[in-house]
Amino acid sequence: MQSIFNHLRACHDRSLAELKAYLAIPSISSDPTRASDVEQCARHTAQLLNAAGIVDAEVRKTAGHPVVTGSWLQAPGKPTLLIYGHYDVQPVDPLELWEHNPFEAHIQDDTIIARGSADDKGQLFMHLKVVEAFLKVRGRLPVNVKFIIEGEEEISSPSLPQFLRDHKEWLKSDVVVISDTSMWAPGVPAITVGLRGLSFLEIEVTGPARDLHSGEFGGAVANPAEILARLLAQVKDDQGRIQIPGFYDKVRDLSPVERAEIARVPFNEKAYRDELGVQALWGEAGYSPLERAWIRPTFEINGMWSGFTGVGAKTVLPAKAYAKVSTRLVPNQNPNEIAGLVEEFFNQRAPRTVLVKVKCHAGGLPFEAPLNSPYMTAAREALREAFNYEPLLIRAGGSIPIVAEFKNILGIDTLLLGFCLQNCRAHAPNENMYLPSFFTGMESLALMLEKLGS
Amino acid sequence: MQSIFNHLRACHDRSLAELKAYLAIPSISSDPTRASDVEQCARHTAQLLNAAGIVDAEVRKTAGHPVVTGSWLQAPGKPTLLIYGHYDVQPVDPLELWEHNPFEAHIQDDTIIARGSADDKGQLFMHLKVVEAFLKVRGRLPVNVKFIIEGEEEISSPSLPQFLRDHKEWLKSDVVVISDTSMWAPGVPAITVGLRGLSFLEIEVTGPARDLHSGEFGGAVANPAEILARLLAQVKDDQGRIQIPGFYDKVRDLSPVERAEIARVPFNEKAYRDELGVQALWGEAGYSPLERAWIRPTFEINGMWSGFTGVGAKTVLPAKAYAKVSTRLVPNQNPNEIAGLVEEFFNQRAPRTVLVKVKCHAGGLPFEAPLNSPYMTAAREALREAFNYEPLLIRAGGSIPIVAEFKNILGIDTLLLGFCLQNCRAHAPNENMYLPSFFTGMESLALMLEKLGS
Repeated sequence: MQSIFNHLRACHDRSLAELKAYLAIPSISSDPTRASDVEQCARHTAQLLNAAGIVDAEVRKTAGHPVVTGSWLQAPGKPTLLIYGHYDVQPVDPLELWEHNPFEAHIQDDTIIARGSADDKGQLFMHLKVVEAFLKVRGRLPVNVKFIIEGEEEISSPSLPQFLRDHKEWLKSDVVVISDTSMWAPGVPAITVGLRGLSFLEIEVTGPARDLHSGEFGGAVANPAEILARLLAQVKDDQGRIQIPGFYDKVRDLSPVERAEIARVPFNEKAYRDELGVQALWGEAGYSPLERAWIRPTFEINGMWSGFTGVGAKTVLPAKAYAKVSTRLVPNQNPNEIAGLVEEFFNQRAPRTVLVKVKCHAGGLPFEAPLNSPYMTAAREALREAFNYEPLLIRAGGSIPIVAEFKNILGIDTLLLGFCLQNCRAHAPNENMYLPSFFTGMESLALMLEKLGS
Repeated sequence: MQSIFNHLRACHDRSLAELKAYLAIPSISSDPTRASDVEQCARHTAQLLNAAGIVDAEVRKTAGHPVVTGSWLQAPGKPTLLIYGHYDVQPVDPLELWEHNPFEAHIQDDTIIARGSADDKGQLFMHLKVVEAFLKVRGRLPVNVKFIIEGEEEISSPSLPQFLRDHKEWLKSDVVVISDTSMWAPGVPAITVGLRGLSFLEIEVTGPARDLHSGEFGGAVANPAEILARLLAQVKDDQGRIQIPGFYDKVRDLSPVERAEIARVPFNEKAYRDELGVQALWGEAGYSPLERAWIRPTFEINGMWSGFTGVGAKTVLPAKAYAKVSTRLVPNQNPNEIAGLVEEFFNQRAPRTVLVKVKCHAGGLPFEAPLNSPYMTAAREALREAFNYEPLLIRAGGSIPIVAEFKNILGIDTLLLGFCLQNCRAHAPNENMYLPSFFTGMESLALMLEKLGS
């Protein structure tokens, strides 16, 4: 393995230069005006696969943004890994909070800062470089690999399930490997064994047919912003329990053993508070902060707007008020069922002075990983050797909806090996990747391939 | 008077052309980027005064936007009217709801549509044309007039009180005349005898130090948008009563006679609902819709924003949430006192998981007019003759804070003669002025001057 490590280490500077070029493409999948950038990023991803030695790399059309595939299958009798990643990124607003252009990667304090550096171009790129190292140094990989790299993860992968169904035979593999999660801390590797699901909705409250002068009409007609605030305020009680009827019905409560495992994770509440910049944490009564973020479903307001939001004063009684909201789901909640319950809640509570419309945007199933597979074992060993630290088995509050689809459609379990840090600012301004994790992470991935091949 | 009427009628087309040029200046006082347009509009106003025959018209500097003045004082022994108006206008957003460019006046169905057509350039312009008619036809006015035309009414006139104090001697007059209110209906003139005051505030709720991934952190940290919604939802009870301690303490309840006067106004609830486009009205229990809009204080959300408000889904837990809110005040509430109570309410109810800041933007005192002055009598007679309809004595829910300042600083009462219609869409897209009211209104103003001079 030393020659592989040597090769990876010799390539650090070139790898960073290539990564910067990759991060420079503003592949924001949710923004229709960025469609050609997303398309260009797909082609760039295929070129990176080619450069790594994957000669059959291909950009494949879908109903939405393309999927990029490629494979190396010359290790008969050895396991086949399906390596998944995504080349699309989140929007960048609020742009003014970025310290540098989000698409001109900036390196500072051993950290690369750019949109996509952690989620997920940076982590996907690690796999490409590991494959390249084996193929350059040895001319072969210890195992078979297939790549499936999509461009719609940040909009909940609308086209990927159909792609999985259409290419079921080609995609046949032993395990899915995804690096789109985080480590526990610098030097403390982790495998993510649970993910929450998602149901994302938009609520539109319509009051009067047009914006009104709040002096002339204020007091005599319902204000949709006020109705929206009152509806949103009814979602949780003072203990943080969600009041939507049926919301908790299918939640599988964790066993005392599972809760004890979470309690063993070294969690520093003060550091967590400081990192988030809050005076006090808050959440559902009866659960620890990690449990609230990992194994409890929740309801969040992601955006809200109504009326005049410019500089100064404008005495308007708005015609409309909007909120974007999302629930995070745990086993065995179903995103479609939950979306229906949320919709019903808002419709039933809406007074007849306004019109409430609820639109479902996106959803994803929750996930739990099997803890005793040979792939899990190899991954734990590889991480321990590379980082010299026994990896934690953690969970994550976020969603990778496709993980459930891999299980449902292809029948394959997923191994979630993440290398960004918890404060990598995914989805937020100044997203970043800590470079020591990036480089040591590549070595751990190389070790895992070697172990799975022997 | 017939020669005055003839002159006014002969000038209809020229008046409209001049009005269009006046409305074309985007004098949005709340927008710092429009400062030069506001300045230009002040100069244009002075030119209009000159053209009307007011030779001493002058643009006068203030700490903010300029005040335009002018006078004609050659009727010794006759009353002196102080005619007030404002040349500034509201912002135009949401721009996409305008059927035409808000600054290119469009005439359709006997109505002129443009920002400022009703509030207040259009109505101010009527006074200029009436003065012009007298000076062109007779070479003199029946009374003395002074003009005071400001450019900060839509931002609550921050500089005008100082201007009144600085020019107290010059401004000495018998009555203030303002046309910045509305008629009751087409053909039904009205004098506004009461106005609500205003206290406008902005609330900022700060949660985490940056936007967070709502999957990773949702459930474990307070969401400022949720806190804001919960705080706003606490402002009123289910009966529409404001729960801010002390809010109603100084409210003067109207006498049964005063309430009976309001009940005599022909109010068609269905037409009101239809015009506003709502299924049902809503407001404080125990009061009629007109009472809720005219003589009861209220609390409205004018704007609200937080997190992601773009196209599609973004799973963010926002760092900040904002609301712009305003209270409408009635005698004897004081805007500063009420702002203090609102601020205290939000600060006291804010949980320690977030930081709440309340900023006071603007305020204005409520107003009630004396009903038995010779000016009120002349105005009622003039309106009755011009419109052939006994004018209603109505109230308005909106604020003209300066009316209280005229009383406090100069000791002068104000006569509010309004000529736009109730659905003139002041402050909203497609603001308009109904031209029959505009032209007959000029004749009523001419009649009033004549009556006051005899």
